Amino acid sequence: MSKDYKYMQLAYNLAKKGCGGVNPNPLVGAVIVKDNKVISEGYHEIYGGPHAEVNAFRSAKEPVEGATMYVTLEPCSHYGKTPPCAQAIVDNKIARVVIGMLDPNPLVSGRGVKLLQEHGIEVESDFLSAELAQMNRVFLKFIQTKTPYMVMKTAMTLDGKIASYTGDSRWVSNELSRAKVHELRNELIAIMVGVDTVIADNPILTTRLTGDKKGRNPIRIVVDSKARIPLDSKILNSCEAAKTVLAVTEAADSEKLEAIEALGNEVLKIKSSNGRVELKDLMAKLGEKGIDGILLEGGATLNYAALESQVVDEVHAYIAPKIIGGYEAKTPVGGKGIEKMKDAIELENIEIEQLGNDLMLTGKIIKK
Amino acid sequence: MSKDYKYMQLAYNLAKKGCGGVNPNPLVGAVIVKDNKVISEGYHEIYGGPHAEVNAFRSAKEPVEGATMYVTLEPCSHYGKTPPCAQAIVDNKIARVVIGMLDPNPLVSGRGVKLLQEHGIEVESDFLSAELAQMNRVFLKFIQTKTPYMVMKTAMTLDGKIASYTGDSRWVSNELSRAKVHELRNELIAIMVGVDTVIADNPILTTRLTGDKKGRNPIRIVVDSKARIPLDSKILNSCEAAKTVLAVTEAADSEKLEAIEALGNEVLKIKSSNGRVELKDLMAKLGEKGIDGILLEGGATLNYAALESQVVDEVHAYIAPKIIGGYEAKTPVGGKGIEKMKDAIELENIEIEQLGNDLMLTGKIIKK
Repeated sequence: MSKDYKYMQLAYNLAKKGCGGVNPNPLVGAVIVKDNKVISEGYHEIYGGPHAEVNAFRSAKEPVEGATMYVTLEPCSHYGKTPPCAQAIVDNKIARVVIGMLDPNPLVSGRGVKLLQEHGIEVESDFLSAELAQMNRVFLKFIQTKTPYMVMKTAMTLDGKIASYTGDSRWVSNELSRAKVHELRNELIAIMVGVDTVIADNPILTTRLTGDKKGRNPIRIVVDSKARIPLDSKILNSCEAAKTVLAVTEAADSEKLEAIEALGNEVLKIKSSNGRVELKDLMAKLGEKGIDGILLEGGATLNYAALESQVVDEVHAYIAPKIIGGYEAKTPVGGKGIEKMKDAIELENIEIEQLGNDLMLTGKIIKK
Repeated sequence: MSKDYKYMQLAYNLAKKGCGGVNPNPLVGAVIVKDNKVISEGYHEIYGGPHAEVNAFRSAKEPVEGATMYVTLEPCSHYGKTPPCAQAIVDNKIARVVIGMLDPNPLVSGRGVKLLQEHGIEVESDFLSAELAQMNRVFLKFIQTKTPYMVMKTAMTLDGKIASYTGDSRWVSNELSRAKVHELRNELIAIMVGVDTVIADNPILTTRLTGDKKGRNPIRIVVDSKARIPLDSKILNSCEAAKTVLAVTEAADSEKLEAIEALGNEVLKIKSSNGRVELKDLMAKLGEKGIDGILLEGGATLNYAALESQVVDEVHAYIAPKIIGGYEAKTPVGGKGIEKMKDAIELENIEIEQLGNDLMLTGKIIKK
């Protein structure tokens, strides 16, 4: 029993290496063990590339016949971008398969297991499934709802300000925190801001990782109902770095939209609600494009709208131990607000991390 | 060497038992050890009562002659409310004294050691002095500056709000956090609020400890330049629970002040600065009254004024993992604010504690 957990843990760690490369696929790792010795490891490295099981077969240093395979997710049984892994396991004469979690797609869940068992392979499942569900939470939401998993990231002072009363925000968080945010940009396939952030800060929103790690730039989504974005914004003039998608309503000027598209950007017309982009509709449209996860780096208005529309799944709140004061200074979440403290939006699965003197609190929104 | 630390740690733990009872005296603990056995323990229990050393002599279960005494603070050598402890140590024929920290008062520091040494007693000092300085930080500031040590306590949501846009604040923090605040009220001799808090919440600001612990109510200080406080406020009509001090300026109506005094409260006339109570002057006046420590439970305006006046030493920020939103919702610190993020007031010696799902961050203001 404890050996199975040990090898599944190894497969889990391998799976994580695919982070940032496989969306909207899940992270999957596989380990092949024979006579108590790991004879191969593999993981799903890149979207469209081989699955973890196949990579493990390819890198095996000795014959895998009769071995045990540990794989974090149920092997697929259907022809997709690659042939079914369950069949590859059969073909390679694996004797036993230990599965982390079953396929969350109800249409195919259990089919991989069945195929293996029909060929006399011993199958065990549900190892480390809570950890695996957490690792693949973006995939799990996407596969089940067809809408992106949204992580709202905020950074504030110890007195709740995201900028000084003059709008100065360089920097609220320390370098360690900012580096961590860039890792998030690498993990989630898209980033979302409101047009006011573009107007105020003119950000480029690419990924800069520390050391020699190479990052993937996220698809940039700007919520801009009336297309107020300046045509010379960095984000509209850097399509070589990453795609920019402008989410507008019917109120946007069509000539301006043409100019924006001419710069190599995409315009997405979304239903409006009180003159603003209807975020639920936007999420559905982004899901259709295969966007499985979004990092929301919104200002106070967009953050409130996203929370109110219930499209936020998780919050990463960075808190810097400094005080700036100011009645006019902005806080992470604005809008009208909730009337009673007892009705506040609450988080669960709280985790705390200290980043130098900064603090990061993560938690999941309790859906009501 | 390590034995000395062990017994000093015991004395330190004893000292802490005096918390809430000895202000403006320091917390002091003493242990008497003979033949590697603790033969007595004592601590300073109550202001005006015997010092730790005397309590240790009184409770000794066997003769102390030739023993070692561990005491967290240098024994006093002067006649104050009690006879000098250094003399009592000599009289009791203690052979060796291990001292945690020397007396911080430059006028008497080292005198106790000298008296002991003149009588042939072996003296060692500076054990656990950093921990002892932290434990006695209120005493240390007070003895050196004659002004109170101020702890600013704030409680906010994860989006920086102390109340909803309608002013509802029940409750931001959870029960564990609120219980912790009541412990702070017990530790610091006084509590300070602004008149707006009295008008909005009509609090009584007494100490309610959990279990069967008996708390001491803090002296209640209300900053109220124009004496706008309602005469029927709970805080003005509960002098049997604790003293209330109203800090006003010359702008306050003298008839109203008389009525306030007639209810058993004290009025303190303070210099004004831009029509507001000058907090530095107030601190000096409160210091004259022997108030060594203050818990500031201010609203946004008073908190900013206190920070701006540089009278705050330490911050306890409670953060609840909930989001309420609202442009109009108040944050812990208001006022005009600081213009540039790089000039923000910073904290050091950051410590984090989790109280259920709530988080408490404590730190000391870096004085510039």
